Amino acid sequence: MMFKKRIRADKAKELFLSSFQPLSKIEVLPIEDCDGRIIAGNITANIDVPHYQRAAMDGFAVMASETLGAGTGSPVMLRLANIIEKGTCMRVHTGSPMPGGADAVVMMEDTVLRDDMVEVFAQIHPFKNVGAIGEDIQKGEIILNEGRMLRPCDIAILASIGVEKINVFKKPLAVIIPTGEELVPRNKKNLLEGEVYETNGLMSAMYIKKWGGNARLLDIVTDSPEKIKEAIISNPDADMIVTSGGTSVGKRDYVPAVVGSMGKLLVNGVGIE
Amino acid sequence: MMFKKRIRADKAKELFLSSFQPLSKIEVLPIEDCDGRIIAGNITANIDVPHYQRAAMDGFAVMASETLGAGTGSPVMLRLANIIEKGTCMRVHTGSPMPGGADAVVMMEDTVLRDDMVEVFAQIHPFKNVGAIGEDIQKGEIILNEGRMLRPCDIAILASIGVEKINVFKKPLAVIIPTGEELVPRNKKNLLEGEVYETNGLMSAMYIKKWGGNARLLDIVTDSPEKIKEAIISNPDADMIVTSGGTSVGKRDYVPAVVGSMGKLLVNGVGIE
Repeated sequence: MMFKKRIRADKAKELFLSSFQPLSKIEVLPIEDCDGRIIAGNITANIDVPHYQRAAMDGFAVMASETLGAGTGSPVMLRLANIIEKGTCMRVHTGSPMPGGADAVVMMEDTVLRDDMVEVFAQIHPFKNVGAIGEDIQKGEIILNEGRMLRPCDIAILASIGVEKINVFKKPLAVIIPTGEELVPRNKKNLLEGEVYETNGLMSAMYIKKWGGNARLLDIVTDSPEKIKEAIISNPDADMIVTSGGTSVGKRDYVPAVVGSMGKLLVNGVGIE
Repeated sequence: MMFKKRIRADKAKELFLSSFQPLSKIEVLPIEDCDGRIIAGNITANIDVPHYQRAAMDGFAVMASETLGAGTGSPVMLRLANIIEKGTCMRVHTGSPMPGGADAVVMMEDTVLRDDMVEVFAQIHPFKNVGAIGEDIQKGEIILNEGRMLRPCDIAILASIGVEKINVFKKPLAVIIPTGEELVPRNKKNLLEGEVYETNGLMSAMYIKKWGGNARLLDIVTDSPEKIKEAIISNPDADMIVTSGGTSVGKRDYVPAVVGSMGKLLVNGVGIE
């Protein structure tokens, strides 16, 4: 017995990818649990950001026309007031709603406040330092597309439009079956000759978790076709089963035959053709 | 009031790194929980891997000298036996202990078995397909150094020498304080003008977790020096405190003053000098 269908890794991958359907199970999760998760369905904004005309700087809201001619050596004087009209200004903070009548914000850095009079040292244009409604995100806009893997900054965008929960694809469940009668559990003391600690299953489980899946690592299964088959069929919820060992040309290598008897053996050995 | 000490990001980083001591709190964890964790102390192997002379292939253990002259067209015949002597061989699997007297393994692929006679089609050297004791890892060898960030493949190495628990550095705890009276919690419905959902704190917490820390995201703190100070001092277990907002030149930007009053303000604004 030899590797009968040994094929190159890229071809094996192609074979696998063309043989399986993407998973489509969906779950609803709070956004703070969605780092690294894949969005199911596009996400549309149902508010504008900002949802009001917003000061984009700390400073003074003004009618821009009132700053005409202001410069470093020639300040314009405006009176600090509770209303915007000719000759007045109002204190605003980054993010404050713009007061009615104001169309621009003079940065704090370009002013000097003396009692209730503000010296303005820069001439500014209308809408300078003002965030328009919907400037960041417009209501009705698709902000994140299905299939995107969410990063914390994407989740902050969701938070900014008040989204609390979203649909994401469920993580695939990989069941891992370490096989081999030479294997012993990691808590065994004093190895006998021929005994080896199980490590491949553990490592596979950790990579699967790291790469976005759930992993269920089974106990070691000895080299028996019946036991291997039993381990496979007793995990019907698995989206993927990963076996380790038992795939070569030895007398005890039963995995390919078991897989073949239960379905289709796509690949039996990866390497040089 | 302006950013008084605005400095470049690389200089700010230098200042920070030279002002802090590395954390040295240690915890003991099962290796399967150590992906991404940092080892505290070197790790030394206390067994050899393999710990016995090991067959490295499926095939037949032989005295290599018995295969002299074997080739594709001229097999040597050996008798399948329970002992290694002139003219005999024994079945071995990958990982099996080598039988006494045997010094090499003929790969299954280079043989044909007829009843209890094995035709060997390849001449092999002593120690061919045999793993020596300590070939992978030698007892007493340092296998992983302090400061290494563990990957699943490192953890598999630990498992292969029977290590169940290791010392790792504790994750740093970052306490995150979102500040700003414009901020509202993400579960508030219907924003008023001037209200903004808190997102920076959430995002910071998620990045901190992703990058290997623990994060504690506090409730929003309004723009009040007393409240900010209170939030800081009520988290004495924090290894790092991250504030968001309140650091600019506005009337409500109290964070730098609060930090300065409690310790040393290293940087007040990052950007072009």
